[in-house]
Formats: sequence, structure tokens, C-alpha cells
Amino acid sequence: MANGSESSPAVRRLASVTSPRFISGAGGAGFRQTVVSNAFSEYVENHLDAFAKDIIRLSAQRSVSARKEGVEECSILVEKMLKEVGAATRVLKLEGAPPLVYGEVKSKKGGKTILFYNHYDVQPEEPLELWKSPPFKPEVRDGVIYGRGVSDDKGELVSRLKIVESFLKADGDLPCNVKFCFEGEEETGSVHLGDYVEKYGELFKADAVVWEYGTVDAKGTPMVTLGVKGMIYVEFVVKSLSQDAHSSLAAVLPSAPWRLVRLLNSLKDENERVLVPGWYDGVTDLSEDELNVLQAMPFEGAEYLKTYGAEKLLGGMSDGLAKKALVQRPTGNIAGIWGGYTGPGPKTVLPKEVHAKLDFRLVPEQDPDDLLKKLRKHLDTNGFADVEMKLESMEPAARTSYKHPFAQAAMAAAEKTYGKKPIVEIGSPGTGPLYLFTRKYDMPSVDIGVSATDGGIHAPNENLKLENLRKGMIWIAETMEIFSAS
Amino acid sequence: MANGSESSPAVRRLASVTSPRFISGAGGAGFRQTVVSNAFSEYVENHLDAFAKDIIRLSAQRSVSARKEGVEECSILVEKMLKEVGAATRVLKLEGAPPLVYGEVKSKKGGKTILFYNHYDVQPEEPLELWKSPPFKPEVRDGVIYGRGVSDDKGELVSRLKIVESFLKADGDLPCNVKFCFEGEEETGSVHLGDYVEKYGELFKADAVVWEYGTVDAKGTPMVTLGVKGMIYVEFVVKSLSQDAHSSLAAVLPSAPWRLVRLLNSLKDENERVLVPGWYDGVTDLSEDELNVLQAMPFEGAEYLKTYGAEKLLGGMSDGLAKKALVQRPTGNIAGIWGGYTGPGPKTVLPKEVHAKLDFRLVPEQDPDDLLKKLRKHLDTNGFADVEMKLESMEPAARTSYKHPFAQAAMAAAEKTYGKKPIVEIGSPGTGPLYLFTRKYDMPSVDIGVSATDGGIHAPNENLKLENLRKGMIWIAETMEIFSAS
Repeated sequence: MANGSESSPAVRRLASVTSPRFISGAGGAGFRQTVVSNAFSEYVENHLDAFAKDIIRLSAQRSVSARKEGVEECSILVEKMLKEVGAATRVLKLEGAPPLVYGEVKSKKGGKTILFYNHYDVQPEEPLELWKSPPFKPEVRDGVIYGRGVSDDKGELVSRLKIVESFLKADGDLPCNVKFCFEGEEETGSVHLGDYVEKYGELFKADAVVWEYGTVDAKGTPMVTLGVKGMIYVEFVVKSLSQDAHSSLAAVLPSAPWRLVRLLNSLKDENERVLVPGWYDGVTDLSEDELNVLQAMPFEGAEYLKTYGAEKLLGGMSDGLAKKALVQRPTGNIAGIWGGYTGPGPKTVLPKEVHAKLDFRLVPEQDPDDLLKKLRKHLDTNGFADVEMKLESMEPAARTSYKHPFAQAAMAAAEKTYGKKPIVEIGSPGTGPLYLFTRKYDMPSVDIGVSATDGGIHAPNENLKLENLRKGMIWIAETMEIFSAS
Repeated sequence: MANGSESSPAVRRLASVTSPRFISGAGGAGFRQTVVSNAFSEYVENHLDAFAKDIIRLSAQRSVSARKEGVEECSILVEKMLKEVGAATRVLKLEGAPPLVYGEVKSKKGGKTILFYNHYDVQPEEPLELWKSPPFKPEVRDGVIYGRGVSDDKGELVSRLKIVESFLKADGDLPCNVKFCFEGEEETGSVHLGDYVEKYGELFKADAVVWEYGTVDAKGTPMVTLGVKGMIYVEFVVKSLSQDAHSSLAAVLPSAPWRLVRLLNSLKDENERVLVPGWYDGVTDLSEDELNVLQAMPFEGAEYLKTYGAEKLLGGMSDGLAKKALVQRPTGNIAGIWGGYTGPGPKTVLPKEVHAKLDFRLVPEQDPDDLLKKLRKHLDTNGFADVEMKLESMEPAARTSYKHPFAQAAMAAAEKTYGKKPIVEIGSPGTGPLYLFTRKYDMPSVDIGVSATDGGIHAPNENLKLENLRKGMIWIAETMEIFSAS
């Protein structure tokens, strides 16, 4: 899960267990009866320690993409592990990018194809002193694996391999064809993933994609996430002088910070509405059905306020409006702002330049290319033509309808596996490169997996519970079975 | 000269040589005839090397107030040097403050009293690698002393002592009584100077004060500065959350940066006018006479634009308006702003808090106590009652009329000494604790001295030209003579 992308862990953590009403009775009479074979379930249960060993084996290989540390070596190990479960592999390379490891395994009976997207790179392990065991010497304690990457995303990656192994060993075949797309720079923003998809065209085409990572919440309730917002991330650089001046000269020299204040003030009104002309063109309200799903999704505004020490939600909005805003409200956020003197005491300086980083979250109806042009035009026509706008990242939203058979399969499989209805997030407020697959190939996607909301991803003592591994593998396998049969 | 206070070196450096018309003929027929005795001039000339040795002696004693390094030891040496020229001394102490070394020498004929304010602490010497000789082993090369503090302010301080010595040795008496106020924390903001003045009341009372530091510009034209602007320096702290949030939550949680943008936007309009009600109460335009002096002051807006790489002056103002703004326009400057993520790349965070440091320069008609209350009230009535406003420093302006006999004396003395009319700065755009003396005792003040605008103060290779030392000493002595006779 990328730093600052995907759905916010907080959103997941804060969600509780009420389930959406539309999947009532999705399992019908066979509610607790699994579609996966007993042989499959038994194979998974009997080999859980071996799976854990492979997760440890892969996690022991450092692959910190932010430091380009061990990434190449890790890609070699990933390909080896793909081959071990019988996949045909290709290691794709682009200049300046870590290898993308591709694999596929065909079902004897043909049929649908599911693409598993995962990544083999990890976040840096710091702060080291907070780890109870070395981050790159993963170990199992009381049924839980600890180590960097054991959840995000090597545990998830290995679980996909082991699902294939389990199907082949237990049932002698897969319910559908399977493709693997394992990239090595997700934690640094998947910078080249678009280029890989562009260059290797049809290779990634499938009927559906299982995205990276999925969780159960603190109460063991599985969560199905069906999309992400898009994003435009820009940095504004306002330069008024070639060097800092003594602030007494503020009487006669232009000020970069004041210009930035005016620029920012022109971008949003007090009701948080983005003032760039055309920003909301085409944006629709959620449908009645979607609002019903939304209504069923648990959300406690009071929990947010407590967690973040805020007095009230933005603009005093109700919980109902907040849930809707998380899914369908475009945002404009100041992620960082800096310039001039930021130390202690009263240094008097007129700063030569000042910076602000802004992320604008987008809903599926918004086209980032179009909005970026509109944003630039807004600056130009409001007297800020000289202000530099550096594009840091840009991606459209992606959302799969909860009515799509693949989403329905994931939800039904969750209910079968966990004995309770899942929490359905019709759209995460976060962002990720999901669109690369879903838009290009018109594929549905779900976020489901073997992790937990308390898995410590990106933090010390990252962990994966073996019981969650077991259940998550069955959940995904069930989803494959149900979708393949649909 | 304090970091970020006093008149801006840039202002001085950029000034050229045209002289104000009002002192035309100030010297009359005796234009080049000095008032100081030939004996005085000869004594100074003959002892210049000895004076340099004392500047080196004092400068060799480290006294970096920012690091509390050698300050106490330096105060002992300062008192010793005061005694060597025959001054009665007192070392004043306040808890937590460096000693303030006080001295006085009475004239046999009584009459007026002049106070010399200087400081014996210096700026840190870094960056060391740029010094051509060790900063605390001062040396003379080609008639120039190099070392930390040789200009700012130990060279100036020693010159005051040596003026007294020269008068006593050459003439057997002083033209007036002399007091010395040598503080040890000017470079860290003169934090306790007000307390010293408060506690030791009448000790500093005089008829006029010679302030710290004075210069000739690159063309050898002396500059007379007659005051400073006041200042309110505050830091705004806007806190919306108890911890940073993932920026996807910007859809539902309040944003500290946007609140700061709105706060700042409420403070100033696009014409740079401070919008706090009552901010300009009582502020007057300059008098016609003052405007005449101002008109005579050289000012090249084009030079500013070149130096600072700006396209035009603030709001496209003319040179004439800019000169006036430097003296009499209250400012509101954003000296620093920071919050959230300020590193490379697109980190998506909703910052829990954000900070801005602002300095408001004030003209003599403005009362900082009053304005501080008005500023707080403005925040409270505009929905920012919860925003913390930390006062970093506050001081009123101080300005001596160019018509005052002491100012006229300094100007006439400059013309006699240098053979050309001085540049007169009726008010510096900078700020300093001048008001402590001028307001309390209703004293006039001038900035005159032995330094030069290219003396490298606060920088590596700080220097003092011996010829400037000689002429500057005569300039000050002339000023004493003329003022005493007035």
C-alpha cells in the first residue's frame, strides 16, 4: 500500500460491522456452505506453516524501493517463487524502473481470467528501535508473523501464489485462468506502472483484478473496497525575488508569501468548494442504490473527532454527509506549505519564494487531464501566470459498481468465509493506480486479502496473523470460484 | 547591529551620493575648517595603529551571545578598557542577562551629556571556511583590520573610547560629558536592555545618544540615519487536529492550512493595506520639509530590482513613493510560513497544524500595545478566536527630526569631515531598541560611526578600514563639538 495512496487505514479502522442491506441473503440457503472444495480448505490448513515460511523467505529479502535497496534481488526471488507454483513467467524491464514480474497459470477448463496485482517492494523499516524483532529477519510469535512487508505486500503476494498452489495440489486445476502483475516500486508511487501497461499492452488484460491488499477490521469483519478517488497533486512555487531580502524592504518589494495566500484564496471558497471554473462539470450525485449501500456502511463521526482531536467535522457536516463526502466529494487539500524563516524567534526576512503542495481528490466523472488545464488557466486569468505549477502525480478515479458480478462474488465469498456480511466501501477516499487496469481493459476490481486493519503496515512490528492468512486465502479462492461460475 | 534589526544594509549600500538640499551651506564660509583642534586630529592620526591594536585586542576576545560564548569575559575586558581611558565604571547585572557595562567621563566645563550606545557581543563566525584569516585572531592587511566584530560593534565601541582618550590627551578636556552604555546581547535581540533601562533609571539620561554604528557608502559619502520603524512580530499557530491525517480525510476533517490562508487573507488587501480596524489611526503623511529631505535622498528603484531580481517595485510604485514607503509606510510581512509535508514528492497529508510568522513595521504615530490588542480583536471577530498568536517581539518606532540641533550637528560635522554633504535617512525602514532611550528620556539620536557599507558585518572577513576609523572618529568628535556649542 503506497504511502499516501489507497484507502486510508484510518477509514478502515474506524469502520465497524454493520453490513450493507443489498447483499442480504446473498448466500441464500447455502450461506455457510463453501464452494471451494474440502480438499482445498484442508490443504491450506495443513500447509499454513509452510506458507508462513515462504512469506518469511520473501520478506527476509530487503526491497526498500525508496532506497533502491535489494529491489533487483527481490524480483529474482519473486520470479523463482512464481515458477515454484507452476506459473509461466516473464520479467519485464524498462529503463530506470525496477523489473515488473509477470506470471500466468492457465486453467484446464479455460474460462475467465483473474489478474492479481501486488508489489514486492516495501516501506523503509525505520524507526528501528521500535521493532521487537529485526524487520528483515521475520519470525512467527504466537501465530503471528512479524517483519517488514509480511502484510504489505509480501504476505498478500505469497498468499496469491499459495492459492494457486493449493488449487493445483488439492483440486488438480484452477477455477479460472490467473495472471500475476508484481511491481517493485509501489511504495514510491508506481512511477513506471503506466509505462509497463502501455508497453506490454494485452499482457495484463483479464476479466477482473484483485487489488493488492484487503483486510478484516478489529472485529474480524471483512471489508470489500470497490474503488478509489483520483488525484491531481501539484506544487505551486511562487518566486518574487532572486534572494531573500531584509523584511524592512517589504515596504517596497513584492512578497511571494502574500501572493501565495491570494492564489490559494482564489482556489476555494469558505464552503470548501473549488473555485476553478468547470471543476465540477459532469459530477453527479450517488444513485439511490449507492446511497443505500452507503447508508449501510458504518461510520461514526464521533470516532473521527476523537481520533483526530477535532471539534466537529468539516463545516459541521452530519455523519451521513461525511460518508458521502468520503466517496463522492472532490477535495482540494493543502498538504504542505513552506517558505521563509521557520525557526525559533523573530527573524525578519522577506522570503524570495514560497511553496505549497496541494492534492485534489477526484471522483470518477472528473478527468484529471482536463482539470489540470483548467487549474492552469485559472492561475493565468487570475494574475498568477508567472507561478510555477509542478505536477507531482495525476491519476483518475476508478470505481467498480457494487452490482458488478465480481463485486457481488467478493461480497458473497466474504459472507460465506467469515459468517457475516462484509463492510462494503463503494469508493475509498484514497487514491491508487487502479485505473491503469480498470480503465484500459474495462475490468472490475476488488480490494480483498489476508491482512488486518491492525497489521502495522508502514510501521514497526508489521504483522500478519496466520488465521487471517488462512481465511483470507479461502475468501479469495471463494471469490474466484463464484465469479468463474457466474 | 542585530540580525534582522536596524536599518537594512541593502538600503545603505544601494544609496548613492546626492545630498539633501536643506543643509546647503551648513558649514558656511568655514566649510572645510574643523572645529576639533589640530591637536586632536594629529593625536588621532598618530595613534591610529595603537587604536587598531585595541580593536584587535577586544575583538580577539570571543563574545558570541547566541552561544553564550565568552560574553562574561568580554565584559571584564570592556570595563578594563573603559578604565584605561579614564572612565568611571559600573558593571550592571540582571539575572539571566549578560552584564551591561556602564561608564562615564565628565567634562571639566560641564554642559551637555552625550550617551554612546554600543555592544560588545558579536555574531557567530560561521561559515569558517570563507574567512581568509581566523575570525578571532584579527589582523591588519593593507590598512584594513579583519576579524569578527572589528566593525560591528567592537571597532565602533573602541572608537568611542579613543575619542575620549584623544580629547583628554590632545585638549585636556572633553567638549561635553560622556556616558557609555555597552550591552552584551544586542545580536540576540537586546532582550534585557529594557529591563536595565527600567532598573537603572536615570543612569542613561543624556541630551543625545550616538547609536551603535554608522557608515560611509561605497563612494565615501557619510550617512546620517535618524530613526527606525517600530515592529510587532507575531507567530500565528492554527491547530485543527491533534495528529496529522491522511489527506483523503480532507473530505470530512477541518484543515489548518486553509484556515491560515483565510486568516491571512483577512489581514491585508490587494493594495497591501492592513485591514485590522484602527491600524492607521493617527498615522500622518510626512511634512513638506521631510518630503524635501526625502526627495534629496538618493534612491534607485532599478538597483533594488536588479539586486533582488524583481520585475517591479511593490504594486508598481514609483521611486518617489518607494522612498516614502521605506520611511513612513506601515508594513505587514509574512517572514515565514510552514506546515505539513515539505519534502520531495507527493506525500498526501492533512496537516494537524500550520504556522506563520509575521512582522508588522510601525511608524512613530503607531502604538504597538494598542495595535496588538486590535490585531487580537480582529482575529476574534473574524472567526479565529481559537488561533494562537505568540508575541515574539514588540517595539515602537523612534525618530529624531532632522531639524533637531543634534541631527543638524551630525550633518554639519559630516560635511566638514568628508568634504561632501551626507546622505540623510530621516527614518530607517528597519527596527531597533532605540526607543528605550529616546522615548524614555526624550533624547535625539543619530547613527554615525567609523564603519562602511562594505564592511562585511555578520559575514566572513568582516573588516574596518583604518582611514574610515580615523575619519569617523573626527566626524563623531566634530558632532560632539558642534552640538555642545549649540
